[in-house]
Amino acid sequence: MTMINAYDGTVPGGTSPEDREMIARRERLLGPAYRLFYERPVHFVRAEGMWLFDAQGNRYLDAYNNVASVGHCHPHVVDAICRQARLLNTHTRYLEETILSYAERLLAKFPAQLSHVMFTCTGSEANDLALRVARSATGHEGVIVTGNAYHGVTTATAEASPSLGPAVARRTSVRTVELPVIINDDGEELARRVADAIVGMAADGIRPAALLFDTIFSSDGLRPEPAGFLRKSVNLIREAGGLFIADEVQAGFGRTGVEFWGFARHGLTPDIVTMGKPMGNGHPVAGLVAKPQLLAKFGKAVRYFNTFGGNAVSCAAGSAVLDVIENEGLLENARMTGAYLTEGLRNLPGIGPVRGAGLFVAVDMLDKHGVPAPDRAARLVNGMRDRRILISATGPVGHTLKIRPPLVARPKHVDFLLREMAQLLPA
Amino acid sequence: MTMINAYDGTVPGGTSPEDREMIARRERLLGPAYRLFYERPVHFVRAEGMWLFDAQGNRYLDAYNNVASVGHCHPHVVDAICRQARLLNTHTRYLEETILSYAERLLAKFPAQLSHVMFTCTGSEANDLALRVARSATGHEGVIVTGNAYHGVTTATAEASPSLGPAVARRTSVRTVELPVIINDDGEELARRVADAIVGMAADGIRPAALLFDTIFSSDGLRPEPAGFLRKSVNLIREAGGLFIADEVQAGFGRTGVEFWGFARHGLTPDIVTMGKPMGNGHPVAGLVAKPQLLAKFGKAVRYFNTFGGNAVSCAAGSAVLDVIENEGLLENARMTGAYLTEGLRNLPGIGPVRGAGLFVAVDMLDKHGVPAPDRAARLVNGMRDRRILISATGPVGHTLKIRPPLVARPKHVDFLLREMAQLLPA
Repeated sequence: MTMINAYDGTVPGGTSPEDREMIARRERLLGPAYRLFYERPVHFVRAEGMWLFDAQGNRYLDAYNNVASVGHCHPHVVDAICRQARLLNTHTRYLEETILSYAERLLAKFPAQLSHVMFTCTGSEANDLALRVARSATGHEGVIVTGNAYHGVTTATAEASPSLGPAVARRTSVRTVELPVIINDDGEELARRVADAIVGMAADGIRPAALLFDTIFSSDGLRPEPAGFLRKSVNLIREAGGLFIADEVQAGFGRTGVEFWGFARHGLTPDIVTMGKPMGNGHPVAGLVAKPQLLAKFGKAVRYFNTFGGNAVSCAAGSAVLDVIENEGLLENARMTGAYLTEGLRNLPGIGPVRGAGLFVAVDMLDKHGVPAPDRAARLVNGMRDRRILISATGPVGHTLKIRPPLVARPKHVDFLLREMAQLLPA
Repeated sequence: MTMINAYDGTVPGGTSPEDREMIARRERLLGPAYRLFYERPVHFVRAEGMWLFDAQGNRYLDAYNNVASVGHCHPHVVDAICRQARLLNTHTRYLEETILSYAERLLAKFPAQLSHVMFTCTGSEANDLALRVARSATGHEGVIVTGNAYHGVTTATAEASPSLGPAVARRTSVRTVELPVIINDDGEELARRVADAIVGMAADGIRPAALLFDTIFSSDGLRPEPAGFLRKSVNLIREAGGLFIADEVQAGFGRTGVEFWGFARHGLTPDIVTMGKPMGNGHPVAGLVAKPQLLAKFGKAVRYFNTFGGNAVSCAAGSAVLDVIENEGLLENARMTGAYLTEGLRNLPGIGPVRGAGLFVAVDMLDKHGVPAPDRAARLVNGMRDRRILISATGPVGHTLKIRPPLVARPKHVDFLLREMAQLLPA
């Protein structure tokens, strides 16, 4: 599968001789597995809040990156990292306060049943650990994911990530369900597909360990509505002896503007929740929370030690991110600015349906017959890049614009984005 | 399998009511999978160079931690992290200079054939990726590890880590070889065992993708000598169509004092090398280097994106670590101070064989009949902790003291360690 919005290395790229030289160095040093964004890749040298700056000093509006979620280089987060890095940075086999106070703050964001937290460094590690825990707790092996899911790059998570394309073999115990084109309030059709997947597993002697869903379905093209449609599917997996793992790497930490977590919009309490990307605003921190009974057997028989996971600096970074989200009212801002963005996009001509939750917004690009048009999406993504606004595309065929700015986006940033996008659309 | 040097949660621990309260909070918040070191766990609040400080201001000599390899909170590394975190911290899909200059410096430490580097956040991710690459490049599935190997905590690496104990199922395609009790210069006996493992795989229809060895065999009880004993085994795996993956998470970055990497002591050029722990002095950075032809297929068909892997701050941290190793002559220091430590230990009464390379030293504790005595090792580890010196134990039965101080250890630190250890040994 071709990566959406990837630079095509077979044509000369870059906006300057210096950039072309950097592209050549990358290929020489990092090899062929690395990809760049955009037809003309961008070279950044500094960043601040909503803006990234290239080597010539031009600024680009970031309407894509959900990692620098509280704004690039936020001084409160950077200060916390520096203070802790100067003081102590050690692992979890000594007693240390930072991990405990951060764990308390983080767990307070979850339903009371989810009372244990475990720290990793990446979302891939968190999902991989969640699968280990689920398989240990249930004694089952099967996992159900969506048809274009992405859950990580470890062996086990890549085997559960069909969006990586056919070159990555799916584990035989992993089954996929396609999200219905139209999802009704009660999610009946999706639940039927989950039931079919469970039956299909049983026919192969496999019992389900988990339903593993990104609760905003980012790589499936963003499917936030109708809130609540997941409930029937979750009931089904539990009846079959499996767990519901909510992958909040995309939807978590206030992204959706309504609730702190994507699963909460659906009125659910998962068995395990995984998180990552925005958790440390770029510092490598990730983890999972789980119902304690699920960890009892795994914890006793297997144990877990992640050398850097939960170290003091990572926890200081995570705690500072929570400070900023709370102190700057970013959940509320994601809701208000997200609504302003969604409304503004709906008023633009020549685009298809707009959907979203908070500051995660998707726009389908269609041709004049209403057929998905990935080429139109690609042109718009690259046109915006040339106008110095960063967005990307997503979905099974790549026809869906992905607009996902840091949570500190304000209406003035949205106005700039809408004004520039309008220039690229038919009048 | 019981973890070596783990705090036993069934007896009250901690040196103060405050520590006992922290232990209870840990259990409540982090659950049962987390373990503490020592019969009486230690609570640290700051660290500097060779020393960790507890809440009462007592200082502990660090003779165990290989992550803070250039010394705890080294100002040059902390400054590099802070400078870069204030400037820019973004991912590898934009052009960015830090990753390229770090990649150039890092690759210069390897034989020319190992010309591509890929970045992850943890050693587990690096080994997991190495297995993905090896399986993709060879089209084979089998992996050979040592009998008490440890390679990580992702599903795939845990399945190749028998040291995690019988509760972690070994993948059927993973086979183990026990290191011979006595290893001859030519490694003939080990090679015979590798050959047997390959034959055993073939009987099950499995072909070998890789021989995956920690080149210092840390969890197998430390087996540095005789340098060169790996060569026959490596030749065998290649003849069978598999690769040699050197896991340098333990032995790398000058630890052995003679060469920058453990494989170099054996006069080998691996096909893939993985690294982690000391790479960022505690900042989560890890990765692998590989022969480019191995990445050609994987890179094109599979690609790889690790959100935090190779970000600008991680690369600044990694580069600063290389500065310190070079500017402070730490490879040379590891050799000199390591020799001084080894010599001093050999002069102590009541201990068994001492072996090591550079600042990674192992001491077998035996009973009066020469039988491995894990209880004696545990008493000594805890006795040293009470004298405020941090060491641990390792090996299949845990009778081997593991002494592995940061690379900035000087003879005066060694003198302190030896003096205190002598107090705990029979006169």
